[in-house]
Parts: sequence; C-alpha cells; structure tokens
Amino acid sequence: MLKSSGLPALSASGASRGNPDGAAVLEEDAAGLPPKPLAVPCAKEDNYAPAIVAERQAFVEAATGAELRHVRQYSFDPRLTQGNIENFTGVAQIPLGFAGPLRVNGEHARGEFLIPLATTEGTLVASYNRGMKVLNLCGGVTCTIQDDQMQRAPVFAFDSAREARAFRQWVHEHLDGIRREAEATTRKGRLSHVEVYLASKFAYLRFNFSTGDAAGQNMVTRATAAACRWILEQNRDVVRRFYLEANLATDKKASHMNLLHSRGKRVTAECTLAREVLREVLRVEPESLAYHWGVAGLGGFLAGADNNGLHSANAIAAMFMATGQDVANVAEGASAAIYLELTPGRDLYISITLPSLIVATHGGGTGLPTQRECLKVLGCAGAGKVHKFAEIVAGVVLAGEISLAAAISAQEWVPSHEKLGRNR
Amino acid sequence: MLKSSGLPALSASGASRGNPDGAAVLEEDAAGLPPKPLAVPCAKEDNYAPAIVAERQAFVEAATGAELRHVRQYSFDPRLTQGNIENFTGVAQIPLGFAGPLRVNGEHARGEFLIPLATTEGTLVASYNRGMKVLNLCGGVTCTIQDDQMQRAPVFAFDSAREARAFRQWVHEHLDGIRREAEATTRKGRLSHVEVYLASKFAYLRFNFSTGDAAGQNMVTRATAAACRWILEQNRDVVRRFYLEANLATDKKASHMNLLHSRGKRVTAECTLAREVLREVLRVEPESLAYHWGVAGLGGFLAGADNNGLHSANAIAAMFMATGQDVANVAEGASAAIYLELTPGRDLYISITLPSLIVATHGGGTGLPTQRECLKVLGCAGAGKVHKFAEIVAGVVLAGEISLAAAISAQEWVPSHEKLGRNR
Amino acid sequence: MLKSSGLPALSASGASRGNPDGAAVLEEDAAGLPPKPLAVPCAKEDNYAPAIVAERQAFVEAATGAELRHVRQYSFDPRLTQGNIENFTGVAQIPLGFAGPLRVNGEHARGEFLIPLATTEGTLVASYNRGMKVLNLCGGVTCTIQDDQMQRAPVFAFDSAREARAFRQWVHEHLDGIRREAEATTRKGRLSHVEVYLASKFAYLRFNFSTGDAAGQNMVTRATAAACRWILEQNRDVVRRFYLEANLATDKKASHMNLLHSRGKRVTAECTLAREVLREVLRVEPESLAYHWGVAGLGGFLAGADNNGLHSANAIAAMFMATGQDVANVAEGASAAIYLELTPGRDLYISITLPSLIVATHGGGTGLPTQRECLKVLGCAGAGKVHKFAEIVAGVVLAGEISLAAAISAQEWVPSHEKLGRNR
Amino acid sequence: MLKSSGLPALSASGASRGNPDGAAVLEEDAAGLPPKPLAVPCAKEDNYAPAIVAERQAFVEAATGAELRHVRQYSFDPRLTQGNIENFTGVAQIPLGFAGPLRVNGEHARGEFLIPLATTEGTLVASYNRGMKVLNLCGGVTCTIQDDQMQRAPVFAFDSAREARAFRQWVHEHLDGIRREAEATTRKGRLSHVEVYLASKFAYLRFNFSTGDAAGQNMVTRATAAACRWILEQNRDVVRRFYLEANLATDKKASHMNLLHSRGKRVTAECTLAREVLREVLRVEPESLAYHWGVAGLGGFLAGADNNGLHSANAIAAMFMATGQDVANVAEGASAAIYLELTPGRDLYISITLPSLIVATHGGGTGLPTQRECLKVLGCAGAGKVHKFAEIVAGVVLAGEISLAAAISAQEWVPSHEKLGRNR
Repeated sequence: MLKSSGLPALSASGASRGNPDGAAVLEEDAAGLPPKPLAVPCAKEDNYAPAIVAERQAFVEAATGAELRHVRQYSFDPRLTQGNIENFTGVAQIPLGFAGPLRVNGEHARGEFLIPLATTEGTLVASYNRGMKVLNLCGGVTCTIQDDQMQRAPVFAFDSAREARAFRQWVHEHLDGIRREAEATTRKGRLSHVEVYLASKFAYLRFNFSTGDAAGQNMVTRATAAACRWILEQNRDVVRRFYLEANLATDKKASHMNLLHSRGKRVTAECTLAREVLREVLRVEPESLAYHWGVAGLGGFLAGADNNGLHSANAIAAMFMATGQDVANVAEGASAAIYLELTPGRDLYISITLPSLIVATHGGGTGLPTQRECLKVLGCAGAGKVHKFAEIVAGVVLAGEISLAAAISAQEWVPSHEKLGRNR
Repeated sequence: MLKSSGLPALSASGASRGNPDGAAVLEEDAAGLPPKPLAVPCAKEDNYAPAIVAERQAFVEAATGAELRHVRQYSFDPRLTQGNIENFTGVAQIPLGFAGPLRVNGEHARGEFLIPLATTEGTLVASYNRGMKVLNLCGGVTCTIQDDQMQRAPVFAFDSAREARAFRQWVHEHLDGIRREAEATTRKGRLSHVEVYLASKFAYLRFNFSTGDAAGQNMVTRATAAACRWILEQNRDVVRRFYLEANLATDKKASHMNLLHSRGKRVTAECTLAREVLREVLRVEPESLAYHWGVAGLGGFLAGADNNGLHSANAIAAMFMATGQDVANVAEGASAAIYLELTPGRDLYISITLPSLIVATHGGGTGLPTQRECLKVLGCAGAGKVHKFAEIVAGVVLAGEISLAAAISAQEWVPSHEKLGRNR
Repeated sequence: MLKSSGLPALSASGASRGNPDGAAVLEEDAAGLPPKPLAVPCAKEDNYAPAIVAERQAFVEAATGAELRHVRQYSFDPRLTQGNIENFTGVAQIPLGFAGPLRVNGEHARGEFLIPLATTEGTLVASYNRGMKVLNLCGGVTCTIQDDQMQRAPVFAFDSAREARAFRQWVHEHLDGIRREAEATTRKGRLSHVEVYLASKFAYLRFNFSTGDAAGQNMVTRATAAACRWILEQNRDVVRRFYLEANLATDKKASHMNLLHSRGKRVTAECTLAREVLREVLRVEPESLAYHWGVAGLGGFLAGADNNGLHSANAIAAMFMATGQDVANVAEGASAAIYLELTPGRDLYISITLPSLIVATHGGGTGLPTQRECLKVLGCAGAGKVHKFAEIVAGVVLAGEISLAAAISAQEWVPSHEKLGRNR
Repeated sequence: MLKSSGLPALSASGASRGNPDGAAVLEEDAAGLPPKPLAVPCAKEDNYAPAIVAERQAFVEAATGAELRHVRQYSFDPRLTQGNIENFTGVAQIPLGFAGPLRVNGEHARGEFLIPLATTEGTLVASYNRGMKVLNLCGGVTCTIQDDQMQRAPVFAFDSAREARAFRQWVHEHLDGIRREAEATTRKGRLSHVEVYLASKFAYLRFNFSTGDAAGQNMVTRATAAACRWILEQNRDVVRRFYLEANLATDKKASHMNLLHSRGKRVTAECTLAREVLREVLRVEPESLAYHWGVAGLGGFLAGADNNGLHSANAIAAMFMATGQDVANVAEGASAAIYLELTPGRDLYISITLPSLIVATHGGGTGLPTQRECLKVLGCAGAGKVHKFAEIVAGVVLAGEISLAAAISAQEWVPSHEKLGRNR
C-alpha cells in the first residue's frame, strides 16, 4: 500500500544543530524535553532545481557530519524524478550485473534475454546464471501468464449483517454504474469485477482492474475512490463508515488472498530438465531434487510459509531494482508455489507459479535513466511490454530455484559462498 | 535464502548475434532448435578490472541494441563490489531523498535522525515525513529490540519417526559438540539454541545464532554446515538423507514461524499520539484510527495476511536500498503486528512489532560507497551499530503507518497522490 | 471429506483369539510375524438384523473381554441406521442437557428456543446458558445467513500451464453442459458456479452447489463426479490425470479458503449488549471485553489461528452430536471471525461470523431417533428448516463467546470449573 | 477453550408457554418486547435426581411439543454424569460400529485392536475397515508419540514493550517459583516449560504441562491461574492488565502454533505399503497415490489448509464420541501433516503426523458407561493408558487416509457411497 497525505511542508521539523559524532541530528535534551527539530530544506517552487538539491546535500552533511560524496554522483537531471520522490538529494548506486542469456519460450517473450540484476549479495548473479544455463540446455523456460489484475479493497460498515448483505446485492445490481464511475478516472484502467466478502456488519469490496502496462496501484486507488464516492451517495442512509482500504487488497503483504486470487500478474514458468544436464552441469540426480521438494514442502507447511519454494525474492528484488519496479512489492511478489515431478523417463519437470507479481514497463520508476536502459536491454521499455517482462521475471525466478536446489542437494552451497561471497 | 553454486563459468551460454529491435539477444531459430547462446564476457583473473567491465558494457549494448549511458555512471572503483556481485557492469541509480528528522527514543538510537529513503514511488518520502512530524510532536518514537537471532534449518531423514525422535534426544545431549563445531567457523557468530521440529520420519533442526553487526545469513549457513558435518559423522548409521535447508529457516519468505520465533531482529516501535496533534496535523480523530484498526484487522484475518498493518514494506524497502541491506529480505521483513488502543485520556497508543527484520551495519552491501554514506548519516556505519539501525528502521515504519492510516481515515489518500505522485 | 471404497468384506481380517487382559484382540506373535487377524462378523443379507448385531456384540466381548452392557442399550430398531453406519453394534450414549431458552431474531428462526447440547464437558451447558441469559436480556441474538454452498474440488492435470489456462476458458464456455450433467444426478442440488484456480500445469475446479436441507457432501460429490465424467470425455486429448478431490474443497479441514469463500452456511450472529446487563449478570465492564478482544486478536494473529474468537467448537460439537450432524465437520465449522466494538453509548456490539457451518435437517444422521427429537425441540426437523437451524447454532455460539470472555475478564473462569467441572 | 462462569441459575430465563407447532418456546411478542422467558427446571440440591430429570423432560416436551421418547432411554444413573453436564435430561444415542482389528506396532499399543467408531455417516466404518486391512497385510501400523503437553496461555499487559521484555527476563529467572505455585494445585500435572512471546507491550506466556492420563485442559487452567496469581503479586507495579487466555494456547482452534509446537499428543503413524497389496486390495498403483499427494499438497497450500491430508477428522470424531473425549477438540485435532514417498522397490511409504491430538483415558467423559466400555474394548480404560490410546487413534487415522486416497485414485469414491451411504 502506498503513502498518503496533503502535507504542505516536506520536512518533519524546525531548527537545527550539527552532531557529526553519533550522527543524530540532535542529541537528547538535558531537560528531557523534545528539542525543536531541524527541517530538511525544500523549495515551494521547484523542489528539484539544482540549488535546492545542493542545499539539501549541504544540510544533510552539516547536520550529520556525513559526507555525501557518492550520493550526489547521479548522471541525470533531478527533475526527471518528479513524481518518483520528494526531497530528491542524490542516488543510491546499486551494483548491476548481467546473467544469461536466458532462453524464454513465452507468448510475449520469445528468444534469449540478457538479465540485469541489481544486487549487493555475492553469488546471486553467478547462481542465477548457472540455473539459466541449465534451462537453456533443456530448451529454455516456458512462461505463461494466467491472470492480470490490480486491486483495491474498500470496506463499508453498516448497522447489521443483514444490511451488509443487502448492500452486496445492491453492488451486484449496480455494477454498470460502479464501472462507469471508476473508469471515468482513467484512460487505461478497466474494471473487470468486484468481489464482495462479508463478515460481521461489514462488506469488504475487492475491486479488480486491468491496468495496461502500469503496475496500477495508484490508478486503481483513484478509480476505486471515485466509484466509492458514487456508491456512498447512493447508500448514504445505510453506510455508517467507509474506508478506502481494509487489508483485503492485499497490497505489500503476503497473503492467502493473493495466492488464491492473484494480484498483479499470475505467471507460471516451467521446464522439463534433462537428467543428463542435471548430472553434468549441476552434479545432482533428479531424484534428490524431487526428494528435497517433498521434505521442504513439509517443512514449509509446518512453518506456515507463503512460498513452498526456495528464494524467489532474490530474483524479484534484483530485477525490480534494476528496472524501476516498486521494490516494496517484493513483500507479496515473493509468494510462490513450486511443483516438480519425475517424468516417466526419469527427467525432472519443474514449475513455479508466482501469484502476485506486480510489474510495469510504463509509469512509476520505469522511466528513470538507468532503469529505462535495463528495460531496453530486455526489449521491455514502454507500451505493450508488461506481459513480456512478467514472463522473463518468472523465468529468472525458476533459474534460481534450480540452481539453489541443486546446490543444496549436491552440498555445494557453502563452498560456492566461500568462493564468491563477502560474508565471513 | 541465498544463492548457490560452484560454477566456473559466469555466463549461461556460448556465441552471439545482436538484436536491437525486440531486444532479445537471439531470436527464435527457424528450425525451432535452441541456438547456441551468447556468453557475457568475464575474466578469470580480475573480473572487476576496467577493461572487462567495459567489455561487458559493450557486449550488452551490441547484443541488445540498448545503450548503457547511465548504467556506466558509477562513482567508485568496481573492485569495491567484489563479493557483492559477479559480472559487475554498472549501477542502478535509485533516487534518494531524506525525511525527518525523526526523534527516536531507543536504547541504542537516541536523538533525532535524518532518514535516507531510496525509492521511485512518489508520495512515499512526503508521507513518511508527515508521520515523523506527528511522532516528533508526541515526544518521539520509542523502539525496543526484543530478539536477535539468525537461522538455518537443515533436515535429517531417518527410517522411521522413532529414530527421528531418538535423534532429537541425541541433539539435546550433544549441544556442546554442535556448538563447538559451529562456532569454529566464525569469529562473531554464537550458537544460542537449536529447535527441533518432528514430522513423519524427519527431524528439522532450526539453528539460532547471534551474528553481531552482520545480517549473518552466510555466516550461519557455514556454521550450520560445519555442525551438520559433525552430526552426520556421529550418526551415519541412522541418517538416510540430509539437506542443509528445508524451509523452516524461513529465509526470504513470509511465515508464521517468523511471526512466532523471530528472524533477524524483533523490534517494537511505539508512541502515544496526542489527540490534538492527530487532529491538527492529520485532521483525524483517534477514534477513527482505532475503528479502522479493528475493521482492517478483521479484513487481514480473512485475507490471511502476514501483516495486520498497512505498508511496512515501503519503509523497509526504501531504507534497505539506501543502506545496502539485502533487499530480498523485504519478503520476510514486511511481516508486522500492529496494535493500537485509545487511552483513558482519549489519546491513541500505537505500536508496531516487526518480527523478522534482517539488517546489518557491516558486511554485505553496507560497505558500498553510497550505502556507507547513508549509514553514516544515521550514525550507523560499522561495528556496534546494528541495534541502533534496527531501532531507527522500526521507528520509520511506524511513522508510515500513522501517515497512511490517517490519510485513509481522513479520505485524503487520493488527493495527496494526485498532487505528489506520478499517477497516470 | 468422506470415506470411500467398494469393499465386499466389512471386516479387516481373519481368525481369532480372546485377550481380555490388555484388550488387544491378538497379542504379538512370538515369531514376530503378523498373525492372521480376526473378522468382525457381518451378514451379506441383512447386516442390521438382531441376530447379526448380537453376534457382533458377542464377538467383541469374547475377543476383548470387555463387557458391552450399556452399548447394547439402544431404544430403536438397528435397521434405522442403515445408510448411517456399517457393522452396527450398539450406541454411544452422550449425555444431553438443555440450555436456554435463547431468543433468536433470525429471518428463519424467530422466538425463543430450548437448546439441546450433548456433551461430557462439565460447565459447558451452564456457561452457554449464562450467555443466553445475557442475550435474552438484551433483546435476543440477531442471526443472518450470508452464503449457502457446498463444494467439491477436482483437479485436472495437463502437459503445461498454457493448456491448463485454455481448459479454464473451456470450462467457462461450457458451464451449461457442466451444469446439466451435474444436476442430472440430484433432485435438490443446484450448481451455482465453478471457481477455477490455476497453479503449475493444474486446473483446480471448485464446484459450488446449493443443496437444500441436506448438508450435501455426498450429493455434490456425486454431481461433480458426473460433471467431470462429461468434462473428461470432451477433453480426453489434453487431460493427463484427474482426481475428484485435491484439497481445495476444503472438506473437514480448517482453511483460509473457507474463511474467504464459505463452505456450507456462512452465518453471522450479533447483538448489542447493554452495559448494565454485562455488569449485573456477568460482573464485567464492556471496556474489559473490548480490550481482551484486541489483545486476543493479536495473540491469535501470532498463533496463526483460524478463529479469532474463543471456543465456537464447544457449541458446534454439542449441537452437532445432539441433532445428527456430521460431527467431523467441527474441523472446519469451528472457524470463526469475531468482532466487537464499544458503542457511543458505551454498550458493547458483538458479532461472530461462522464461515463454514455445515448443517442439515434432512439426511445423514438427522433422522435417527434421539437426533430427530432434538431437532423437533428446535422446530427444525425435516424440509425447509436448515436455515432456521443454522441461525440457532450461530446464536448459541455467540452466547458461549460472551460467557467465556466475561469469565476471563472477571477472572471467574477457574472458580466456575472448580464448582461444576469434573477434572481436578 | 472451555466454558465459564459462576452462575447460580442454570436456566437463561423466566415464565413460559408451549408452542408445539414452530417449536419455539415463545413466539414473538406483539409489542415487540422481549417476553419474560421460560426456565429450564433445575434443583439446587440434587440436580441429577430422577424427579428433577423427569421434570425437565416434561418441561421440554410441554414447552416445545416435541416428544422425548428416545432421549430418555439411557441405561445408567444420571448422577454418573455429574461433572460432565448440567441440566442432564437424557442422552443422544450415536450409532456405534466396530472396524478392524487393526494391528498396531506402537510402544504402548502392541497387537490387534477392534476399533469402536460412533458415527452417523454411512461408508465411514467400511472405509476405515478397508484401510486397516491394507495396514494389517503390510505388517501393521507403526505409531510413535513425539510430544505430550497441554497448554494455557495467559497474557500480561505493560506500559511499554521494554517492560514486557523485562518481564520475560523475570519469568525466566523465576521459573522455580512459577512451577511451585502451578504444581501445588495438581497431583498429576507437571509444568515442563513456559514459552514467552512478545508483541507490542504484551507478554504472552504459553505454559506447557504434562497431564498424565487426563486431557488436562482444566488441570492446566487451574495450575496456570495459580501461577499467575503469584506472578501478579510479584509484579503488581508493572502489570497493567492480565487475562488468563489470549488465543495462543490455542485451544479448540486450528493454528500454526499447534502444528509447530504440538498440543496434547503429537503422534506419527507410518507404514510401508506393499505394491502388491495396494494393487490387489485397493486396485491402485503406488504411483497414482504419490502423484495425488503432490497435487493435493499444492491444492492445500493454495487453500491455506491446516491439514495436507484428506479426512483425519472422520476417525477422530468417531473415536472421540465412542470413548468420551472432548469432541470439540476435533477443531485442533484434525490438523495433520501427511507425507509419502515411493521406496526404491516401488512400494509406498506413508505417514501421518497429528500434532495436536487431545485425548484422555481418565477424567472428562471417559468414565461414562458406554464410553468406558469402548475404552475397555481397546484395553485403554483408566490409568497408564493414554499413550496407548493416542497410538491407536493415529493408526486409525492413517487407515482412513489410505482408503480414501485409494478410492479417489481408483475412481471408486462415488460408487462406494452409492452402495453404502444414505445419499439422497
């Protein structure tokens, strides 16, 4: 879920004093009273102009004693970040490497793709690269998008369960009006359906939109708000309270809702891995991987995990940072259902389903310079590319599952980190 | 969970051909056969030397037709990224803004802190800033670390449940030996305890380590592997299979295990928000926030969410990118338990508990230039700082909960995004 | 989920030997070989005739040395149990008490009802009775049925995710045919809709039926099987495997699926409890109950419970045994979402939603003599009564929540058990 | 969770009027006012004496018009039910059949056992019987108890998270005193350990007791209450609120807590099923059962079920009713983790772990006449038998899983119900 407000001031505070040592801007007051705080400088006119950006950099340095030598080394006009960030002060430089190519047999992505991965975790690029090699040798990864929806879930409170139930009926009967109001706020968004969940005296509505090439969280928030205004007008005598969101979306949270009903894209990546490839490239028997899947599935069931696979979050976070996705969506995006089976010929069919992959090729951070370049490397920049991009992400996730599962089975996990990793 | 391998080659492939248009490196073969793939160039000697980095940049550009104009604009020696990434080719530049200061009343963080947030999502910095203002006006946020452990969870398979149970007994009786073997591999890591979970004929062990200022995933993997080697030697007659991980860690996955037993740091941030501050700064009544908490709690229960709050993932992802944390840990880090109550004086007590916050101030990506600068802004770079950093993160998360909850209650959510966001 | 077979013999075994002491029919063989087992006598012709029932009683007594003096004291013709049990040998006599009356303001149940509760747990009847008294003094409990469906969830396996997705489309386009085949097998069952869930290369269908006054598990199993036969005929080229159930029903299991999508009846019971009644009858302040709800909600969230209330299972099990329901459905029936709030006048609104209450007033065990009598006490025997019965059950559940919550808040829990209970 | 109170009157009400038709005791009042309700007769002196029981029977008949001809046909002195039920009025007669014998290779149960099953669901006895036959032919079922604890989970509220954390430390340091106070209330109960879970400003304690042959819920409630009284005395300056239970027990609820940490007995039943037996007796290939396990595991993962098996609730409910267990514990007892694998010799290893099986052979309803007889049939009546009984229950559960899984795989599920069930 996103952020809020209406605030005029972009700083939390007031006056200032440097404190280089402990790097707190203001130390504790002797009297124990909260001191009047410092304000991050911001300009009402053009808060992205070089002068105010420089003023902020100087302010941070003065207030904390930290030097921002690298943070200020961005290669673009800060005005490009308008709509992406407030109080722009510089950049975090995240190392970027390439794995692959990965051969993807999607409906939208067809061919071999070099995969940009932004990460600070040693071994990650190498491990995904290894999984891709296996997929390539087995004909590539087949990727299929099974759903595509973005949600917002307002709640309406009534005097009783019976009125909530009557309201559900009203919603079903007025879907045309609801759609009209929602879609009037957006060029690309289309309301596909509204689920209604009842509990106590509440009706939770879950609006489902298609959102084109944008991730669409803001689009659907605005459209749902418009629809709800109209709904509230028509039901003002019975609705006692209303909130635009009540945790059934479920935005930026892992949930069974998402596992069942998808959020963003639901994508499955699959491949049949040849026995000989597994043996030669990964030094592992298919049977060992199959056994591990069973025992790890039981483990994940005990643990109550939202992912019976291994580490989808690694690929997703690295690709999201590289391509300007909303990285907070790793929270729900990492949910996964992995499945594998030995084929009659003793090869290994493996698949992973990502039920809530939220991606965009337009809007959000996708237009920022380095992110745009990475999307272009994938041939996924701009309109009409989001399904292609989703397929590639799922394929990369599967590569990582194969590589790590094999390392666990072959007991090569620790040695590889010793060689490539940083943590000692 | 992390990455794997032992692979000599860092590229998935073979020979090459440019394909600027669709940006797939190789288009589908007419014969339907997988073409021999391209290789990302890498050097056996020094894979971070300028020449090989430039060669990779040229290769990506040639292979895909995408120009890497900004990706190559990093401000540091690529060799610094050794251990953080393979095939280094450039950087993703993520916009960085500052919110705050935020007054933190921790046991380790005491004073006011400027908060670096790396994000591409408009309104985020402004919204957190607003929440910080409220916290500051109410005396600051009180943060408490309640647990601190990092895990690895191997599984041992036996012939029967009875032998798995006997093995549990063996483990309890040989904890000294297990600890000795585990701790011999690490200077900082200390094995605190080993949980044993039994199901079917399997014994799942969950090793818990304190890891100092490192996040410690690799440290505990190595230490657990060493302990398991010793365990396997002592039990070779009865152990039928062994895997170093089986989804009870639970690394990079949301899970009930983490909610109950913590992973990384368990931190609670709390504050009593004065009624007048809520009214004046956020235009919201405490009663409306309390009501929303109840109805959203019911919604989250229906949805099966691992977080009964709103959007902890936003703060966590933004601070993780800014400070060099492992961003994939957003998957479990976003789990949260929020609680609030009206006080007898009609103010609002609010708290959030993060049960699985995985952070470091040493190791991993924390030493990279921009990330190091951000940690220094917080006074959190290097040894002895990880608890301070964890407290600050939790305080920032709470600020965001307050701001968004108020926007939902005051119905200002959409207008604020219209003003600040990149809503399309 | 139900039981299975096709077996001709109703006994698991062969020849016999008495073993009164340890009551195992056959002690361990000296040679360690499994001895040839004994057979429970059964008649091919009329397995409910007095002679064969008596033979079984004698057999059990002879084989085990246990005397069946009370088990054989049933008051009806065993033939009445045909279709309810195989190998009928007697009855378990479960003590039956009455609580109430309870005033129910349902749409189907209107008035005051004496509540039959079969239980062996001391304090249960008294505690529910106390809650009913509170509800009565506050005008009675308002009950509303929000959904009514019974499910069966077969799975179809394909070669790939893409074919599973195409099959989903096929299902949506052939709903008329599917309905026709399903409904041809039943007089009362009506197929309302079919949900399709995709993961990996599988399509999980969840058939939803209305089932009249029967619980309907067998009805929907048969109807779904018929529909699937037809589906399989039409899709024989692409379906690789088929199973009539694959754990998405989810029968006799607690699940998030049921919380979201209901199973059997979804019923909400609610009441506004007057402050003075709570104080005088239960010696408890509304504020204490409200506080407990919040803190127990947080506890249940940590625990990953499928019920944020206290003990719905007690009422459900006791009424199910009294009225001939399928008692195994306590497994999913006990799921509950409780909600409460202080009203502006400082009274307490309380509600509980049971999302998966599986009940019948016709079929199954509802026609057995004592069970029928209990249904008649409720005015719920036979056709057209199932919604009335569901409303009453929900009302009783709410009574129990109030009474136990008050006992916990007033710290009277232990003393009441000391006085009325058996366990010391 | 159990019941409550301290109530003097065992009836919810006041004056009366018969209403045979709709069977509500009192119809709606014309004025809409709640009428003064009727009272179920009860005697202060001896509420189990024949006269008062008869008076209640007459009252129910007069008030509702229902005849209690069979309900009054109990074969024992009602005074036996003192401590098991209040307002005893008669019995529910649940049909009882026997399956088996089942060969159990437990540590406590060794030999062949006839299994009493109380049910009204046709096919159940036959299906379990069939599974037992398979187990017997494969050498019997091996059962192992892995844990044995009963819980109560009070919550303590403080001013802040920091004080809750300090309290955890206090608890760890005063475990001897806590144990002393708890154990002073019970002859059989022993406090083994106390888990402490922290969230917000709350400390949730989970007391774990061994309880001998009783299920022990009341025993541990009383013991925990005593310990908490002492804890509260020692911490009266800091504890702000206290409740004896807050949903972490988790009593009568399915939960991940129970899956991980057991409640009552944790038992695993396992067997290797010979390929030929599966083929001949069940007409099914091991491979089909293994495949179904995988696909149903994925289905249950999507559904968020607390049981990845099929229908453990059926065996548990039927045995619980037959033997006087607390049937409401089916709610948590039905949780199960099933696991199976093909052996190298192509036989099928299968196991089921029940993490929260709550059973007794002493106390509660286990001493009632028919229930006692059934326990005697099993050789499980009275002291020192509870582990034996738990092993048998787990073995029966496994028999049911095998039979139903085979019926699904062999597509014999519907035909068997057509033949034996009461399908309408």
